[in-house]
Amino acid sequence: MRKTIIGVMGVGNLATPRDLDNAYQLGQLIAQNGWILLTGGRKAGVMEAANKGAKIAGGLTVGILPGKDTSNLAEDVDIAIITDLGNARNNINVLSSDVIIACGMGAGTASEIALALKNQKKVILLNDNPISKEFFKSLSPEKVLIARNPEQAIVLVKEVLQT
Amino acid sequence: MRKTIIGVMGVGNLATPRDLDNAYQLGQLIAQNGWILLTGGRKAGVMEAANKGAKIAGGLTVGILPGKDTSNLAEDVDIAIITDLGNARNNINVLSSDVIIACGMGAGTASEIALALKNQKKVILLNDNPISKEFFKSLSPEKVLIARNPEQAIVLVKEVLQT
Amino acid sequence: MRKTIIGVMGVGNLATPRDLDNAYQLGQLIAQNGWILLTGGRKAGVMEAANKGAKIAGGLTVGILPGKDTSNLAEDVDIAIITDLGNARNNINVLSSDVIIACGMGAGTASEIALALKNQKKVILLNDNPISKEFFKSLSPEKVLIARNPEQAIVLVKEVLQT
Amino acid sequence: MRKTIIGVMGVGNLATPRDLDNAYQLGQLIAQNGWILLTGGRKAGVMEAANKGAKIAGGLTVGILPGKDTSNLAEDVDIAIITDLGNARNNINVLSSDVIIACGMGAGTASEIALALKNQKKVILLNDNPISKEFFKSLSPEKVLIARNPEQAIVLVKEVLQT
Repeated sequence: MRKTIIGVMGVGNLATPRDLDNAYQLGQLIAQNGWILLTGGRKAGVMEAANKGAKIAGGLTVGILPGKDTSNLAEDVDIAIITDLGNARNNINVLSSDVIIACGMGAGTASEIALALKNQKKVILLNDNPISKEFFKSLSPEKVLIARNPEQAIVLVKEVLQT
Repeated sequence: MRKTIIGVMGVGNLATPRDLDNAYQLGQLIAQNGWILLTGGRKAGVMEAANKGAKIAGGLTVGILPGKDTSNLAEDVDIAIITDLGNARNNINVLSSDVIIACGMGAGTASEIALALKNQKKVILLNDNPISKEFFKSLSPEKVLIARNPEQAIVLVKEVLQT
Repeated sequence: MRKTIIGVMGVGNLATPRDLDNAYQLGQLIAQNGWILLTGGRKAGVMEAANKGAKIAGGLTVGILPGKDTSNLAEDVDIAIITDLGNARNNINVLSSDVIIACGMGAGTASEIALALKNQKKVILLNDNPISKEFFKSLSPEKVLIARNPEQAIVLVKEVLQT
Repeated sequence: MRKTIIGVMGVGNLATPRDLDNAYQLGQLIAQNGWILLTGGRKAGVMEAANKGAKIAGGLTVGILPGKDTSNLAEDVDIAIITDLGNARNNINVLSSDVIIACGMGAGTASEIALALKNQKKVILLNDNPISKEFFKSLSPEKVLIARNPEQAIVLVKEVLQT
């Protein structure tokens, strides 16, 4: 039977130390709740940190790669989905996730949040960027939720899953 | 030889009257400059209005459709590209455009702006939404340009094409 | 660490009883070997039968769905990847599989075999259609392997994985 | 109003001299009939030759590129659609064409024929490969048509367009 998938979207090489800490904790918490972690799969930034956290906690991890092989795969990804779609794979990331947590902010992450909203999915924002929160809230007040820390993000995930 | 393509991205059914006016004028001006107009191709909102403007002015129009047939195609599209990719087609919209003009604001449009920036393309924002301008400027100060009206958007397109 | 994925591609509603038997056995054998089963994920034909076999044997299953939700998902899929790409998702099926087994024959399956060969992947054919074997062998003599039954297909998978 | 698009699919670097001659003639004939030529857009083989023929005859040409820029674009393509989808773009090639002509044979071309049939589109085969004709005819007797030369292919295109 289909398992619950929580997507953690975030910045690659330009992730901040805080983003990396948050991503690692999110990975751990997702695994501890018995959910599958889904990320963009690359060996960089939020993707790499979230997968590391999930595997430390014994979870199962899925990576949706933009390229045509596994040359850039994060080590802690169990199941690599190779799309060769470039940034169009961002739409698969959000469609395949029951809930999306956006950890940090950049152009790729913004595209995933916007695609999630376009596809009527809920998104939890976890970042230090007040403009981004104001902007995405204005696009979809009901579908955008704000978390102050990883623990609160997980509380919000549980609320979304129960609705 | 490859022709210059200007993409006009914008809201479908929820476009405002001002967005529709702007889109129509953009379509006209793009055609008058000898450029090809590219849109998301649907018979709604900014897409439909921009195509109408371009055809009135004798231009050539390309529509990149999300569905698997032409059932929802705007009448004034000359060349329909049928992708069956859903919202993943937004990445094709921006990659295929030499310059992107975002006319109005919504989740789909936001995804196109973000994907454009992720792909290192320049985007001209034409809307009444100050938060969106602040947010996207913060993501990429050099790649996001602001226009107050369709004429100014075209001036900016010319500047981008010359660089 | 990344797990080995074996793709089983085959016909949906028009699968023959022999195809369904073969798919069920392939699913079982893939699970018994500790590999992950990947299919097109739909609740029909070879996809459904292979997933059933894999779950009976305690395996892990991945389904790459063409639609935009899980409305047509086979019950025995653990991890649903929702692509909304229509038949373009066939390219993801083959790229994500270490080895592909084509079980039965139809237009969709033929597209997956051809895409696999185009992407330089090995494909094992298991069907009763001699023309298809001759044709695909002619396209790529080294990359197309022929199996007479599920057990032999698994022997060939092992050989490919060791190279 | 939407214009008629005829897709010519074929081999890149491994095209035979006969394939190249046929492609060039097909491009000319398509342009002379007032249709738009659609190809995979690359500067190689059948794609390049068909575009050359179409432009000599004053036609309009569309190229659906697999990469993320125009670095590999055939010179005679007017409208470059940049997909960054790799071989998944083959599905767009066939969906966007009113009729598909497969000129020559290889793994990529075979995938396009199979995807066309899966999408219920008609395909005209023009090649020297009798096994391919037998195989695809067996997949879909009504949707696969056989042409002996470019002129006959165009006669068949006209018949398909009238139905």
